[in-house]
Amino acid sequence: MAFPKSKTSSPWLVTPGGKLRLGSIDTAGTPEAPKAGERSEAEKPTRALREELRVLQGALQGEAKRSVLLVLQAMDTGGKDGTVKSIYAGINPVGAEVSSFGVPNDDEIARDFLWRIHVKTPPKGKIGIFNRSHYEDVLAVRVRNIAPESVWRPRFAAINDYERILTESGTTVVKIMLHISEAEQKLRLQSRVDRLEKRWKFRMGDIEDRQLWGDYQKAYEEAINETSTDHAPWFVVPADKKWYRDFAVLTIFVDVLKGIDPQYPKFDNLDGLQIP
Amino acid sequence: MAFPKSKTSSPWLVTPGGKLRLGSIDTAGTPEAPKAGERSEAEKPTRALREELRVLQGALQGEAKRSVLLVLQAMDTGGKDGTVKSIYAGINPVGAEVSSFGVPNDDEIARDFLWRIHVKTPPKGKIGIFNRSHYEDVLAVRVRNIAPESVWRPRFAAINDYERILTESGTTVVKIMLHISEAEQKLRLQSRVDRLEKRWKFRMGDIEDRQLWGDYQKAYEEAINETSTDHAPWFVVPADKKWYRDFAVLTIFVDVLKGIDPQYPKFDNLDGLQIP
Repeated sequence: MAFPKSKTSSPWLVTPGGKLRLGSIDTAGTPEAPKAGERSEAEKPTRALREELRVLQGALQGEAKRSVLLVLQAMDTGGKDGTVKSIYAGINPVGAEVSSFGVPNDDEIARDFLWRIHVKTPPKGKIGIFNRSHYEDVLAVRVRNIAPESVWRPRFAAINDYERILTESGTTVVKIMLHISEAEQKLRLQSRVDRLEKRWKFRMGDIEDRQLWGDYQKAYEEAINETSTDHAPWFVVPADKKWYRDFAVLTIFVDVLKGIDPQYPKFDNLDGLQIP
Repeated sequence: MAFPKSKTSSPWLVTPGGKLRLGSIDTAGTPEAPKAGERSEAEKPTRALREELRVLQGALQGEAKRSVLLVLQAMDTGGKDGTVKSIYAGINPVGAEVSSFGVPNDDEIARDFLWRIHVKTPPKGKIGIFNRSHYEDVLAVRVRNIAPESVWRPRFAAINDYERILTESGTTVVKIMLHISEAEQKLRLQSRVDRLEKRWKFRMGDIEDRQLWGDYQKAYEEAINETSTDHAPWFVVPADKKWYRDFAVLTIFVDVLKGIDPQYPKFDNLDGLQIP
C-alpha cells in the first residue's frame, strides 16, 4: 500500500528525492491559509477540519483494517504538545494513543533503536501519535555525539525499511516537522522560565540544544531529505504562528485520512434486528 | 495517603461500609445539577469545570509527585467512551493515558487478574483513565460463570489491598459507575444497530449480557459495596442523560484534584534566567 495520493497540492510536502533547504522556508509564513493568513479567518475552517477528522476517525475505527501513525518532530518549544491537543479536540480519545519518547531507559538502550518505537505502533482502526520518535536517533544522537556516524548514518536506511514494512501492513505513516525560528524559540523558552506554571517544562538542556541550533537544523535537513519517501513522505509546517500550525497540520492529516478513505462495514446480518 | 476529603457533599458517593441499592437510584435523576436539571443550564458550569480541570492537571504535571487513576465502569452503552471524550476536552492529552480492557489475551490470562492492570497505572504527574478495569474480573467473570465463586470472591479483598498500595504510593484511585436503566440501554443498543456509523460498536454478546441485566446489577451492587473503601471509594452517577453524566463526572473529578491540591515547584534557581 502506498501513501495516499493527496487530492490537493500540498505546500508542506517534502518531495521524495528532492533537496529540502530548511532555511528557505519562512517559519512565520502562512501558505494556503484562508484570507492572507489572518488568525480570525482560520478559526472556522480549523473547526471544520476537526469535524471532518471526527467523522473520518469514526470510519477508521469502524472499518478496523488500517491505522495511521502521525510522527511529530520539532525543536524544543516547537509546539508538539499543542499540536497533539489540537488533534485530540477532533477525535475520540479511546481510538487514539499518544506516545512520548524521551531519553531511552536501560531496557530500551539494550535493544535496537526501533524496538521501543515498534511497541507503540497503532493497531488496526486506531490513530497513533508520536511526540518525538525514532528520528531522535538520527537527530539528538547525532548532534550531541551520543553515537558515531557509523552508527547513526545506517539508520536512515533502517528507518525507510521499517516505515515501508508498516505501510505494507496497513499503517500509513505521516511525518510532520513543526518548523520554528531561533528567535521564536527564544521567546518561548523565556516564557517558560518566567511563568511558574510553565517552568516545569524547562530543562537546562534546552539551552544547550539551543546553542547547537545550526547543527540541529542541518541534522533535520539531512534526516528529512534521506527519509522523505514515496511510502512515508515528510511535511514541514511553518509553526511560529500556533493558529496556522494547527490549521496546516489538520489540513495534512485530514487529507491523508480522506486518501485512506476508510469505510464502515455493512454488517448486513444486523439489518432489521430488534433489541429485546 | 488517604482519599482527599471533599469540600462539598457528594450525592454520588457510596459510603464505605454502607449498603448501596442500585435500584433505589434514579438513573435519570439530576442531583446537584444547576437549575432543576435543565441541559442548557449545565453547559456553562460544565465548561467551567473543564477549565478548572485544565489548570489542575497542569499543576499535577508540573508537580510530578502524584497521579490520579479514574476507573470507569458501566453496562454496555453506559457512556464510557463519551465520558472519556468529555474529560479529554479539559486536559492536555500528553499528560494522560486511557487504557481499555477487553477480553484478556493469552499473556494476560496466564497471570493474576491485576497484572495487566498494574502495567497501565499512571506514572507521577499523569492522569490515567481505565475504560473498564479489574472490576470486570468480579463482574463479567462472575455473571458469565467464567470462574467459580471460590476464584472471584477473594478478589474483592485483593482489589482493596491493591488499590491501597496504589494510594499509599501517591496514586489517587477514583472509581465511577455510570448507571443507566435497562430501558435506556435498549434505546442505545437499537440506535447502534440502526445506524451504520455506530454498528461496529455492536456485538451479539451485548444482547446476551442484556439478558443477564439483573445478575449484572446484583454483581455491581456487591462489588461496589465490597470495594468502596476510605482510600478508594465508589461513586455512582445517574447516566441516562449524557449532559448530566458529564457534569457529574467532571464535578467529582475536579473535586478530587482540588483535594490533592497539586503545586507547581518553584525552581528558584531559574529566577531571572535570560535565554541566550
